[in-house]
Amino acid sequence: MLMPTDTFFTRRRTVRRYSGRQLSDDTLRELFEEASHAPTTGNMQLYSAVVTRSAEMKRRLAPMHFGQPQFQGCQAAVTVCADLRRFTRWCEISGAEAGFDNLQMFFAGVLDAAMFAQQLCTAAESRGLGTCYLGTTTYNAPEIAEALSLPQLVVPVTTVTVGYPDECPADPGRLPVEAIMHQESYEDFSDSRLRELYADKEAREDSRRFVEENSLENLAQVFARVRYPRNPTNASRSRLRLLYARPASISEHH
Amino acid sequence: MLMPTDTFFTRRRTVRRYSGRQLSDDTLRELFEEASHAPTTGNMQLYSAVVTRSAEMKRRLAPMHFGQPQFQGCQAAVTVCADLRRFTRWCEISGAEAGFDNLQMFFAGVLDAAMFAQQLCTAAESRGLGTCYLGTTTYNAPEIAEALSLPQLVVPVTTVTVGYPDECPADPGRLPVEAIMHQESYEDFSDSRLRELYADKEAREDSRRFVEENSLENLAQVFARVRYPRNPTNASRSRLRLLYARPASISEHH
Repeated sequence: MLMPTDTFFTRRRTVRRYSGRQLSDDTLRELFEEASHAPTTGNMQLYSAVVTRSAEMKRRLAPMHFGQPQFQGCQAAVTVCADLRRFTRWCEISGAEAGFDNLQMFFAGVLDAAMFAQQLCTAAESRGLGTCYLGTTTYNAPEIAEALSLPQLVVPVTTVTVGYPDECPADPGRLPVEAIMHQESYEDFSDSRLRELYADKEAREDSRRFVEENSLENLAQVFARVRYPRNPTNASRSRLRLLYARPASISEHH
Repeated sequence: MLMPTDTFFTRRRTVRRYSGRQLSDDTLRELFEEASHAPTTGNMQLYSAVVTRSAEMKRRLAPMHFGQPQFQGCQAAVTVCADLRRFTRWCEISGAEAGFDNLQMFFAGVLDAAMFAQQLCTAAESRGLGTCYLGTTTYNAPEIAEALSLPQLVVPVTTVTVGYPDECPADPGRLPVEAIMHQESYEDFSDSRLRELYADKEAREDSRRFVEENSLENLAQVFARVRYPRNPTNASRSRLRLLYARPASISEHH
């Protein structure tokens, strides 16, 4: 398939509702093949991905993704992981010790995983498939790791749901490029400039509806109080998650 | 431009040598516009990017990227950052407090930044530009943050160099898809299976040359001892970096 790149990205939409059209194993494998050519740290490919297609695994994982319908309804859910284990073990069986027990390398694995995931999405979308990232993967990383039998040094980073679209979502809108693009050094926006940059977003009809439905004053309050409220347990849970992801597991392994 | 998606990704190459052909500000802005439609957590766009084009900033940043020639020779270096500050400040001026002082949200920002960076690369490559990721950005994150005047809550994640190619790199090779694709649960490969999966990589002529040049026994040793040697200071430096990235900075801000 040929895609017009100047409009492909601006027209792409996250798709959460999928039709019953089957995604073949061959097509899924081709998507993996294409995505595996994404850039990767030192050509080490510090990632792996676990495909969930069976009804049994979907049932087991669904609550860890808070029952989101795009997980239930997709043709395949691909959980992309930072994987320092495969490389470390390859070194071990080659009489070499990979010194990857540091956050630097964990971070490299996270980036490798994200670059692969994003390439997988683009490869899928260019074939008319729809995709959606699930942020729940990092919320429930330890439980998901257990369900997918991830060994030490393999940490789930994100999950991409894939399927043929059964919806044509409206443009969700993005901030103007000036809000994200800084020349030579970071411009710490003044309050008035910040208001300007968010003005279009706040003026959208769906934004105003969210504000009204929640009886709040503005869109920022919808995000801060309803969609992503401060959670007193967040900080400690995050630390647990870090311990989980941390090289502690490497020393256990050795 | 139209791109054949089935071969586009498998044929893409990381490009480290750029010609003198100018990259216009307009084209760069278009790349940002396209990349800004990459998926993003809750449509919050928890990232920003700082463009380095001036000779002065290049000179200043070059040592932080260990003098890599692709940084010196590129038309633009784009340092992509997890940015929790813009969103937090937008909430503040809207009478809302963003509870983003946890690793969960930092992680969301890192993923948003990586998805944006990868979309930027694909948009650039589809126009005939070449790109290269610089892993040095996380090695020297604190110094780079200072050079780019990044305020608190803005953490550099990676840098993408962009320019028109002055080389046609050979295929660096990737592991077979079976090495990264797991069905339903993670398969912890046996030693012999692992050897099979790395066999083609080890048999490559460039791999054998690396081994010979370094007077080592095999490719894994080249990676573990020469390219990514264990560094006794890595662990502590990583911790410093985490503190740097951590919400400590948020509480200072409030």
